[in-house]
Amino acid sequence: MRVLRTVAQTRVALQSARLQDRTIGLVPTMGALHGGHLSLIDRARAECDLVVVSLFVNPTQFEENADLDRYPRQQQHDHELAATAGADLLFAPTAEEIYPDGFSTSVEVLGLTDRLEGAVRGAGHFRGVTTVVAKLLNIVAPDIAYFGQKDAQQAIVIRRMVEDLNMDVQIETCPTVRDADGLAMSSRNVRLSERERDRALAIPRALAAATAAAAGGERSADALIAAAREALRALEAEPEYVALVQADTLDPVVRLEQPTLLAIAARVGETRLIDNAILSPDSSVASSASSQPDFNSTFPASQFEKQTDPRQAKPREAQATCSA
Amino acid sequence: MRVLRTVAQTRVALQSARLQDRTIGLVPTMGALHGGHLSLIDRARAECDLVVVSLFVNPTQFEENADLDRYPRQQQHDHELAATAGADLLFAPTAEEIYPDGFSTSVEVLGLTDRLEGAVRGAGHFRGVTTVVAKLLNIVAPDIAYFGQKDAQQAIVIRRMVEDLNMDVQIETCPTVRDADGLAMSSRNVRLSERERDRALAIPRALAAATAAAAGGERSADALIAAAREALRALEAEPEYVALVQADTLDPVVRLEQPTLLAIAARVGETRLIDNAILSPDSSVASSASSQPDFNSTFPASQFEKQTDPRQAKPREAQATCSA
Repeated sequence: MRVLRTVAQTRVALQSARLQDRTIGLVPTMGALHGGHLSLIDRARAECDLVVVSLFVNPTQFEENADLDRYPRQQQHDHELAATAGADLLFAPTAEEIYPDGFSTSVEVLGLTDRLEGAVRGAGHFRGVTTVVAKLLNIVAPDIAYFGQKDAQQAIVIRRMVEDLNMDVQIETCPTVRDADGLAMSSRNVRLSERERDRALAIPRALAAATAAAAGGERSADALIAAAREALRALEAEPEYVALVQADTLDPVVRLEQPTLLAIAARVGETRLIDNAILSPDSSVASSASSQPDFNSTFPASQFEKQTDPRQAKPREAQATCSA
Repeated sequence: MRVLRTVAQTRVALQSARLQDRTIGLVPTMGALHGGHLSLIDRARAECDLVVVSLFVNPTQFEENADLDRYPRQQQHDHELAATAGADLLFAPTAEEIYPDGFSTSVEVLGLTDRLEGAVRGAGHFRGVTTVVAKLLNIVAPDIAYFGQKDAQQAIVIRRMVEDLNMDVQIETCPTVRDADGLAMSSRNVRLSERERDRALAIPRALAAATAAAAGGERSADALIAAAREALRALEAEPEYVALVQADTLDPVVRLEQPTLLAIAARVGETRLIDNAILSPDSSVASSASSQPDFNSTFPASQFEKQTDPRQAKPREAQATCSA
C-alpha cells in the first residue's frame, strides 16, 4: 500500500489506473479505523480494481474544539489496518494540503442539514463534511465511494450533494458494524470507561425496543420514540435526540407506514454516540424469524461476533441494506 | 452540431471521446451569443478535440426578476451561431433538468464575492454562478473551460472555486471582445436605444482615461478612479462602482504598483453594463506604441473592427492576456 500526502501525488498515482479504465473505490475516513471502516474497505476491495482509503481528520466539521482535540489519532496503526484490509493507496494529507492559505469555498446542502446532527452540532458541521467530501471526490474521482449507515444523515446529505452537483460517482451506504453486544463500532468508543461502555448499550437496546414495538404492531411515532427513550433512561444514557424520520428527506413522521429511520444521539459521560435503525411496519422485514421480536431479531446474530481485533472484521449484513 | 437537452444524453455523448482520450473544451454561456462568446468557442476549437457549448439562462444568479425576464433569448439563432463557430455539442437543458424538485445544494466562494458585482447584485448572484458552473463542469468534465475577461470577477471567483474544490479542469480567461467603437460586447447591449448606445461609450472611455493617466505616471488610486468617473459623467452614464483592485484578491489598492484591475459597473438608462481593464504602472505594458497613450493604445486597433455579424467574430488579443 502506498501512502500519499499530496493531491498532486494522488492524481499521478491514479492516472494510469484511470487510463486503463480500472474501477476506483474510495473509502473516506478520519482514521482511528475500526471494524466499520474495515468493512467498507472490504466491500470496496470486492467491487473495485483499485481501493483508495483517505485518512483526514477534517477540522472544519468539528464545532467543538475539544471534540477535535480528543478525536483519536493512531496513524501508524491505521496504515497497517488499511493495508491488511486491502487498500492499495492511502491518501493522508495535512490540513494545509486540504485547506491552503486563501481557501474560501464551501459546499452546503440546505434543509437536510439543519436537523438531528445539524441541530446539535451546528450548521457548520455538515458544511464541513460536504466541502471536504466534495474535495476528496474530486481529488480521487472514484467510481464508487463508500459510507457507513451508522452516520445515516451524513450518507443522505452526501447523496443529495452528489446528485445536486451532478458528481459522477456512485455512493454506497453500508451496514453498521457492531460489537458482539450490539454497540455500533465508533472511533469514539475508545473514550468510554468500562462502566460507560456498559451504559452505552442503552443505545442499541433503545433501537431494539422500538423495533420490537414496531414489530408488535405499534405505529405511533410518539409511542415508538417513548419505547426507545425508556431504554436509554434505564442505563442513564442522556438522549440528545430520538427521532423517527423519513429516510430520504429526514422529515419527522407521526405514524410508521413505511421503512423509516429511527435516529438516536446520546451522551454517555463525556462521550457523544449516535446510532440508528430502520423501523418497518412490516414486521417480516425487521424480524426475519421470530414472531416475538427480541434484541437478536433487530440485529442479526452474525453482527454480534466478538471483534477484538478490527483486522478480523468483515462486512456483515445488518438490517439496513447496503444500497446504491 | 448535436443539441442535447439532458445530463444523461450529454454524459453518453461525451463518453466515447473520453475513452479515446480526446480533449474536451467547454464554453458555458447564457445564450444571446455575440462575438465575445464566439471568440471563446473559436479558442476552444483551436485547443480541444471536442467543443461543448452550454446554453442555460441560470435563474439563480439573477437577483432581479426583471433582469431575468428581460435577458435576451434567441435559441434558434444561438444554435446556428454556435454551430458555425465550430461547436460539436450544444448542451441546452431546461431549468427543471438543472434544478429538479428537491434540489438543495449550493457552492459558495466567500470573501471574493461580497464586493463589486456581489455588493450590487447581492450575495446570491455569485452563489448562483458558482453552483451552476460546478454542475456544468461536473456534467461535461472538460479538460479546459473558457470564460471571458469582461466578467473579470466571475472568472476570478470560478478559478478560486476550482482550485479550492480540487476540480480537475483548467480555467482559461480570454480577452474582452469589443465593437469597433470600443464598447465591450454584451448580451445586454441589444437593450440599448441608439442614443443610449452612444452614451454607453462612456465606459470604454472611462477605462481609456484611467489607462492614459496611469501611462502618464499617475499612481494614486483616487486620481485614476476620478479620471474614469469624469469620463462617465461626461456622457451621463451612472456609475455603480469604479474600483481599482488587486486582480487576484479583489482587495482595493491605494496606489498603482503592479498590474491592477480597474472594474466599472454603470447604468445607461435601464441597462446595467460592466467592463474592466488592467492598469499597469509600467506604461509599456498598457501602451505598446505611443508615449502619449490615447484611446487606441488602451484597446489595440484590432479590437475595433466593426462586427455587425457575430458569426464573423474571431478571438483577438486585447490588453488582458489570456491566462490559464
